[in-house]
Parts: sequence; structure tokens; C-alpha cells
Amino acid sequence: MKIEAVDFFYLSMPEVTTEADGSQDALVVRAAAGGFVGYGECEAAPLPSIAAFVCPMSHGVCRPVGASVLGQTIDGPGDIARIAAQVAYDSMDLLQAAHTWSGVEMALWDLLGKARGAPAWKLLGYDRSHAKTPYASQLFGDTPQQTLEWGRAQRAAGFRAVKYGWGPIGRAGAKEDADHFMAAREGLGPDGILLVDTGQIYGEDVDAAAARLPALEAAGALWFEEPFNGHAYEAYGALARKSSKVKLAGGEAAHNAAMAKHLIDYGGVGYAQIDCGRIGGLGPAKQVADYAVGKGVTYVNHTFTSHLALSASLQPFAGLKDHRICEYPVKPKPVSTAFIATPIRRNSGGDIAAPDAPGLGVAIDENGFKPYLVDVEIKAQGKLLYRTPRVG
Amino acid sequence: MKIEAVDFFYLSMPEVTTEADGSQDALVVRAAAGGFVGYGECEAAPLPSIAAFVCPMSHGVCRPVGASVLGQTIDGPGDIARIAAQVAYDSMDLLQAAHTWSGVEMALWDLLGKARGAPAWKLLGYDRSHAKTPYASQLFGDTPQQTLEWGRAQRAAGFRAVKYGWGPIGRAGAKEDADHFMAAREGLGPDGILLVDTGQIYGEDVDAAAARLPALEAAGALWFEEPFNGHAYEAYGALARKSSKVKLAGGEAAHNAAMAKHLIDYGGVGYAQIDCGRIGGLGPAKQVADYAVGKGVTYVNHTFTSHLALSASLQPFAGLKDHRICEYPVKPKPVSTAFIATPIRRNSGGDIAAPDAPGLGVAIDENGFKPYLVDVEIKAQGKLLYRTPRVG
Repeated sequence: MKIEAVDFFYLSMPEVTTEADGSQDALVVRAAAGGFVGYGECEAAPLPSIAAFVCPMSHGVCRPVGASVLGQTIDGPGDIARIAAQVAYDSMDLLQAAHTWSGVEMALWDLLGKARGAPAWKLLGYDRSHAKTPYASQLFGDTPQQTLEWGRAQRAAGFRAVKYGWGPIGRAGAKEDADHFMAAREGLGPDGILLVDTGQIYGEDVDAAAARLPALEAAGALWFEEPFNGHAYEAYGALARKSSKVKLAGGEAAHNAAMAKHLIDYGGVGYAQIDCGRIGGLGPAKQVADYAVGKGVTYVNHTFTSHLALSASLQPFAGLKDHRICEYPVKPKPVSTAFIATPIRRNSGGDIAAPDAPGLGVAIDENGFKPYLVDVEIKAQGKLLYRTPRVG
Repeated sequence: MKIEAVDFFYLSMPEVTTEADGSQDALVVRAAAGGFVGYGECEAAPLPSIAAFVCPMSHGVCRPVGASVLGQTIDGPGDIARIAAQVAYDSMDLLQAAHTWSGVEMALWDLLGKARGAPAWKLLGYDRSHAKTPYASQLFGDTPQQTLEWGRAQRAAGFRAVKYGWGPIGRAGAKEDADHFMAAREGLGPDGILLVDTGQIYGEDVDAAAARLPALEAAGALWFEEPFNGHAYEAYGALARKSSKVKLAGGEAAHNAAMAKHLIDYGGVGYAQIDCGRIGGLGPAKQVADYAVGKGVTYVNHTFTSHLALSASLQPFAGLKDHRICEYPVKPKPVSTAFIATPIRRNSGGDIAAPDAPGLGVAIDENGFKPYLVDVEIKAQGKLLYRTPRVG
């Protein structure tokens, strides 16, 4: 098969707020080859990501992503790896390329799986898709009381595990953060799995982050996620050495497999959280999963957008039975649910799994794009480089 | 002063080829505040970089770069660092932001220096700008004979040091590469300083790169630049341990200070090559220079574009007397010279230095933009997000 077309659909809520909620817009990718169609999603700023696909070449290793993708042969997983290597080399000086390629790569696995009648996880080498324990992923409340109530609500909704993130954490002192951690525990009850995400708020300040450890331990948090920026391996490593009970988690910012491996090796994280919409898709994510297994680190997906992205991010560790916990967005904005015809639902035991269906196994309803489609036009030298495709 | 405006000028040769020559296009940034104007240059794909400044917000930490810059106060270097931190945090999920910000940051140092009547290197804390030995930076010839002749030509033009890069290297075997290295030495004569840049061609293949070491040693190369991709710290480290006479050089891909420090710490490079048009501008580059000094590593600029970018990239190590070698593009395309009213020329001894003049000390002639200005228009939801500014 030849890749005949790659189309980008930029979807957005009518109003986007400064809330740390990545489900407020979406960049869906549709790839076509040999009569098959696959979908993927970039977890990325839509406009720069589209520009990275269509922009004029700057020089030999600053080429648009489209130049490495369109017209290429795709008959097996090796072709996806080959195209990935070409993107990495020919676009080495185009920073945004990794985010753009991530959604395209996903779409190619979806397409290839449909062509072969096989789930992507099977093409990745797994023989089954194991059940995962979804954690409800949500923000911290504005007040500890709200944090407590939201925890109770998630338990009532059947979630055994809940992750709180961002919001007021790190904005005031350690005492204020501790109040939220303890409120979260109270809301979840003694047997709930508590996960805490602080969204890089401590920069590279190891002492500030370490000051939160006693409260996290007292609250029985399983992990302490993203205390620092994604490149602060030394800060991660220093905090990991101070923390025996609560493991560090991180990796969502990785835009290639090496970054995630470095966070494991130098940063000492116990949980490697990978977003297939950023790391370059399923291929490099699977490399990280294999690496994590070898290092005794637990692989977890990072997903805060649609169930298309959720399925993609489940594939690379679908076959790892013991890597059981997974992120599951519970308060997504309508823009990220409107186009998902077959969401990934919890079974009676409260678990989810990567679908046992061809490709990513999530049916897309393009009619769901319509209310949210952002009308974009990019022109250079009078030539139209991009215009939002028509739907339906 | 308040930052009133930031304008982007996308310039390009009429035809751009796949040659590894970064001077075929340019993205010049103009910032205005308090009646002063400063210029900078992103070493980046122009269209995605512009998009990263003007795009709609995706969520709280995926904001356009413009949102962190426009209207901000700039009265001293601390303000530039503050804005940099805000860009890093508020655009943490916008990958291209670092490249966009790099040119803006440069423009702010230029502007601030002009407002204060001080060179940027003085604002960075140096008390003088030391002479540097420029190396002529060019590609390898298509044949060893061409490589030899180009070396002779650069010596005849007064360059004591010459860097060869890319071209046919690594495309055939170690023998073919060796022929080029020896031809380069012959062309330069026994006392010429020979630098070799292989443009990531060996991927992460340590053995392939190590197979080139004997010829590099025999040719008396000072450094072996970018054997691997910018994140392959382990490959760099392994090769560094095999190489006693020829030091490794790398770092141009760093889009933040941490990446460059990691290449020093984990990759074992002896030369840290920093492009201010990618790493986030002069501020993080100066951090790397300070770090390199502490680690016994030599700081070098990476510059393959205009003399505006050259001046910017000289500033962070202008005051380091012993870090003497510097990159000097010798075959730039006309687009990257047309707008430079005061190029940085070699003195009678063949040396150059960061200008002793306010800001970056390079006068810009906007009339030089005109023949190369790319007419761009970006619209979303009927709203004009960007249009190429008029010149003159």
C-alpha cells in the first residue's frame, strides 16, 4: 500500500480556558492507503503541528513531516519504523516534528491493523490485551473540601484508583499541599489508590518537592508525579534518593524514546508515563515499555484527551500483565468525546483493556468533528499549504 | 519599558535544496519597547515557529509564546529570565516554543543593550570581548579532491581552522570517509586546525563511529562532531571512552540548557556547541558556558546562518579568553547576508570578536529583507493570526 493522503482535523471547544485540561482541543489525523483509513491524535498544539507537516523545506534536515510520509509504502510494522527514522533524520531541526509525527504514526498503526484484521497490540508483538485498572484522572479541587468530595464521587462511580493533579498544588506552602493530600485520602477511603500529579510546579527545586514527601507518605500516595520539568533528571534523581515509600512518576513530556529512558536511568522514576501522542507514536512507546520491564520500572499511559488517544496509549503495554494501572480521563470536554463512536468502557469489574479489534479498535464518527472543527487556512507565496478539510 | 510588538520576517532563497545548508532561509524577529528596537533570529523552521507565537491556546500550559511576551516589562536581564521562565512553563506542551522563543530572547537582549548603550556580553556579566579564532565552516566536497581543494582555498583566504561537515560522510564505508579526512588534512597543510562534523549520520551506532577514529586521529582532527543524534548520550559516552586523541563535539540540537549539560555529563563531549537560535537564546547559553567552564569543557558557538545569529551566539562566551575557537559561516546564501549592514569581519590577524557596540552590535537593513520576504498568511475561524509585515 502507498500512503495516499494524510488529513488533519483541528477541533476545539468554543472557549479554551487556562485550566490544565488537555481535552479542550484535539488534533485528529486521518491517513489513507490501499482503500483503508486510519486515525490518530497528536497531543499537541494543533496549529504549529499542522504547520510542521505542510511547511516549506528549510534545508536537507529541516524538511516538513509530510515529505517523509506521503507516497511511502506501508505494508508492515517495519515500514512504520522506517518512516519514523526518516522523519527523525530529515526533520531533525524541526522541533515540532515529533508531535506532528506522533499522531500520524498512530494513524498508520490503525490503518495497518485494519488492513490485516489485527489489533495494533498484536502487531506490536503481544499475544493478548490484559485488563488494566483505570485511574480516574482529574484536577485537584480549588479547596481541600472539593478535593475530598471529588474523591468520594469517583469512588462512588466505581474507580478504585484516582489521580489528582495541578490546580492549587505548589502555589502556596507545604502545609496547604498537605491538606489537599489528606483530603484526597479521606475522600478515597483507606483502600483507594491515590496518585498525585504536581505538574512540574517545583521547577528544579528538590527541597520544595522533598518538603511534600512526609504528607504524601502519610496520605499513602502510590506515586508523586512530575515534581520537576521533564529535563531535570538530576532533580528527579535527588528526590528519588530521598523518597523510599512514594515512587516518582514522569515521562509525559518525552518526545522520543531516549528522553523516557533517561528519566528512568538518571531520574530514578518508578513509573514511566508515556503519551503516544507526543513520543512519536506506538513504536517508540513500545521500546520504552520493553526498557521499563528490563529495569523493573512500571509502564503507564499518559492520556488526557480522547478515547482514540487512550486506545493508542494502551497498545504499547497491553500485553504487560503486571503493569496494571492506567490513566483514564473522566471529565473530558465534549470536543474529545463527540467523534468517538465506540468509547472504551469499564467492564463489570471496573477494568478496561486495549480493544480486541483491528487497528486501534475505536470507531470514529467524523460527524462529531463538525461542531468543533476550527477553520484554518495557511498560505505562503500565494500558495495554499493547508485548509481545513470538509467533513461529511 | 513594555514589549509593544514582536514581528516575524520569514526570508527564503527562491529555491531551497536538500543540501545541509541552514542559511537557505531565515526567521528574523523584531521586538519593540520604549522606543527601542531589537533583532534576533530563530535557527528553526519559520512557519511552525511563527505558528507557535500566534496559535490559539490549547490549555493552561500549552499557550502560544506571544501570550508570555507581549505587554511584558523589560528593564533588565532579570526580566528576560522571568519571561523565559514563563514561556517554559506556560508553553511546556508546545514543543516548537523553544525555537520560537530563542529568536525573541535574542531580540530582547539586542533591545535592552541598545537602551542601556551596552553590549549584550556586558549585560551577561563579562568585562570584555576576547578575540576568537574563526573556523571556516563548510560542507565536505563531493569527492576527496574537492574536499582537498576547498581546504586549500580556505587557507588561502586566511583561515587557520576549517570545519568540514555532512556531504558524503557516513554514506559509504570507513575507507571512503578516511579518504576525505586525509584529503582535508592535505588541503589544510600540517598546521591547519581540522574539525570534522558528521551530522548525526551514525545514528546510535557506536561501532560505525568508532571505525572512523583511527583515520580522524591520523588526520589530526581536533574534534569529531555530532556522530550521533542529539539524545544519544550513551552512544556519545561510549565513543568518548574509546577516543583519547580526538574529542567529541556536540550540542547544537539542545533546545534548553539541561540538554547541553547532559551531553557534557553523560555524553562526555569535550566541546559544547550551542546555537542561541535554538537553546532559548543568550540566557541559557550563558548557563551552559558557565557549566562548561566548571567541567573543563570548551564552549563553542554553533552558527550556520547570518551574522546577526553569529553575534548572538558569540555573546555567551565572549568573555572566556581560553575558549578561543568559534564557528564562522563562509559560504552563506545571499538571503542571510542581504539584511546585515555591519557584518562581523576578521581583523588583520584573522580573528573575530563579539562587537563592542550596544546590544548585539549588528546593524540590520530591513530593505535587505525585501527580495527574500515570504508572503505568509495564517487564519483561524476567519481571524487573521499572522500576515507577513510590510517592509519599508
